[in-house]
Amino acid sequence: MKTRIGIYGYGNLGRGVESAIRQNDDMELVAVFTRRDPSTLKINTEGVPVLHTDDAPGMADRIDVMILCGGSATDLPVQTPALAKYFNVIDSFDNHSKIPDHFDRVNAAAKESGKVALISVGWDPGMFSLNRLLGNCILPDGRDYTFWGKGVSQGHSDAIRRIEGVADAKQYTIPVESALEAVRAGKNPELTTREKHTRECFVVAKEGADLARIENEIKTMPAYFADYDTTVHFISAEELRRDHSEIPHGGFVIRSGKTGLDLSHSHIIEYSLKLDSNPEFTSSVIVAYARAAHRLAREGQSGCKTVFDVPPAYLSPKSGEELRRTML
Amino acid sequence: MKTRIGIYGYGNLGRGVESAIRQNDDMELVAVFTRRDPSTLKINTEGVPVLHTDDAPGMADRIDVMILCGGSATDLPVQTPALAKYFNVIDSFDNHSKIPDHFDRVNAAAKESGKVALISVGWDPGMFSLNRLLGNCILPDGRDYTFWGKGVSQGHSDAIRRIEGVADAKQYTIPVESALEAVRAGKNPELTTREKHTRECFVVAKEGADLARIENEIKTMPAYFADYDTTVHFISAEELRRDHSEIPHGGFVIRSGKTGLDLSHSHIIEYSLKLDSNPEFTSSVIVAYARAAHRLAREGQSGCKTVFDVPPAYLSPKSGEELRRTML
Repeated sequence: MKTRIGIYGYGNLGRGVESAIRQNDDMELVAVFTRRDPSTLKINTEGVPVLHTDDAPGMADRIDVMILCGGSATDLPVQTPALAKYFNVIDSFDNHSKIPDHFDRVNAAAKESGKVALISVGWDPGMFSLNRLLGNCILPDGRDYTFWGKGVSQGHSDAIRRIEGVADAKQYTIPVESALEAVRAGKNPELTTREKHTRECFVVAKEGADLARIENEIKTMPAYFADYDTTVHFISAEELRRDHSEIPHGGFVIRSGKTGLDLSHSHIIEYSLKLDSNPEFTSSVIVAYARAAHRLAREGQSGCKTVFDVPPAYLSPKSGEELRRTML
Repeated sequence: MKTRIGIYGYGNLGRGVESAIRQNDDMELVAVFTRRDPSTLKINTEGVPVLHTDDAPGMADRIDVMILCGGSATDLPVQTPALAKYFNVIDSFDNHSKIPDHFDRVNAAAKESGKVALISVGWDPGMFSLNRLLGNCILPDGRDYTFWGKGVSQGHSDAIRRIEGVADAKQYTIPVESALEAVRAGKNPELTTREKHTRECFVVAKEGADLARIENEIKTMPAYFADYDTTVHFISAEELRRDHSEIPHGGFVIRSGKTGLDLSHSHIIEYSLKLDSNPEFTSSVIVAYARAAHRLAREGQSGCKTVFDVPPAYLSPKSGEELRRTML
């Protein structure tokens, strides 16, 4: 039996989910939903209909899991609870401080409809969260470190683009290698924001723009750049397209802890990701958890859940017997 | 409510469990069981009784989870199913090829008694298995690599000690750095046994022993050393005690995979451990899973399970709400 998937929103993430479904024989794309005029949207999968989001509820009995591919700022807070009335849903809500509130609203909707909702699935939140949790449980006397990058931060790139005189921009978040090495060596350093990451910006200026002013506005921008060592490079639109069109990302979750009667033994648990495409990797995580959502729903479960609540075997199409024989 | 723990077998692993329990406020050591004369065994926790293994069944209503700390060769195949008749049990059975058989026998016993049994908990099998599973589910088009070390292999150290003329020995398994780098670079190399690990041996010879013969017997030993580049150092008993008395270990699980419509994007997921004390880290994993076993039992579950079956949140003493707020 295949898991029948709907994609709700067709940006980078939606396209990533579409291609990830092709890599999983037990998953089937049923429809893509868009707020645009469906006739204007060309997707990559032959024979799969593009429908308007208004028509989603009518597809409730033909979709096992609806994957929400909108943004966390304004789309998902509305869409996830709304769609959970009709579907098992999964989203990648990534505004960490608002997760508890989002959870409560989605949980209320999913409990009422009897559906399963998985929120905040991806790599952070997602796989990184899972590793923070495991590290804390295994080594209760220890410290957590999360580093991001090297990778493109969409939010920081957007912030630069809003500066007057900027035509386009791409911002890379880069972990500070010496900080990483100190953590790996078990030194448990106290690290300031500036000591953990640097920021590198590639900016295309409009003709005649004041480059010194743009650079200064970037480097002094509160919250986004002021607390970091920031480098600004002005390049041509052609260079930006040629050298910075991909969306790589990644990072490191490290748990450094001690054990023993006198806590004399140190241990380092490190989980790292090096991703050519942030949206495609996030999509791949989501599709694996969509399989789990379907299985939880078939068991009769309901309500909102996160990666913390899902038995790992549920992510796999293989039987428990096969998993124990081949991967344990 | 505390989880009341029994320790069954008091070697390196049992002592590790004992000290890990001290690091977890919600866990309580109730008794240590030994096959020796209990009066001859001094443990590190004041006021906790040492009892003979024959007296274990009588403690069934005072222990929530019995942690089995024996060996995989002869102890656990007998003890885990036998104890599962009376207790929720957890073991670190690590003979990978025999896990399916062990699972079936433990499952039959635990189903009959209505107890929960968690087997093969530790880091390999255990955390490494979990990462192999997650990597496979997220990146179905990819390859797995597991490297071990740098660390002490007890089995290989024992094999050297059985050679005539050897008084004592310690063997380190070391991953080949260039192989690790090729995997991390996404080159998906085909690696032979020799290309993945080297073996370094520190040997204390008996007086007058033929060192050349010992070195040759080590290097040509089938299965253990013949397929590896092996280095042998002869040292004094004093040097062995001074420089090689610890039991460090660790390793790397790497999933290298591709995504995208034309599989043009590469991703590397890497999980690594650097452990000062192999038995203490294994014990720390086991104690976290003992918490989960107790919770599964309270929910009325029964039968044999592995790390693949346990929702990660069950490893934590914290509530779901707190976990979502602090770690997601």
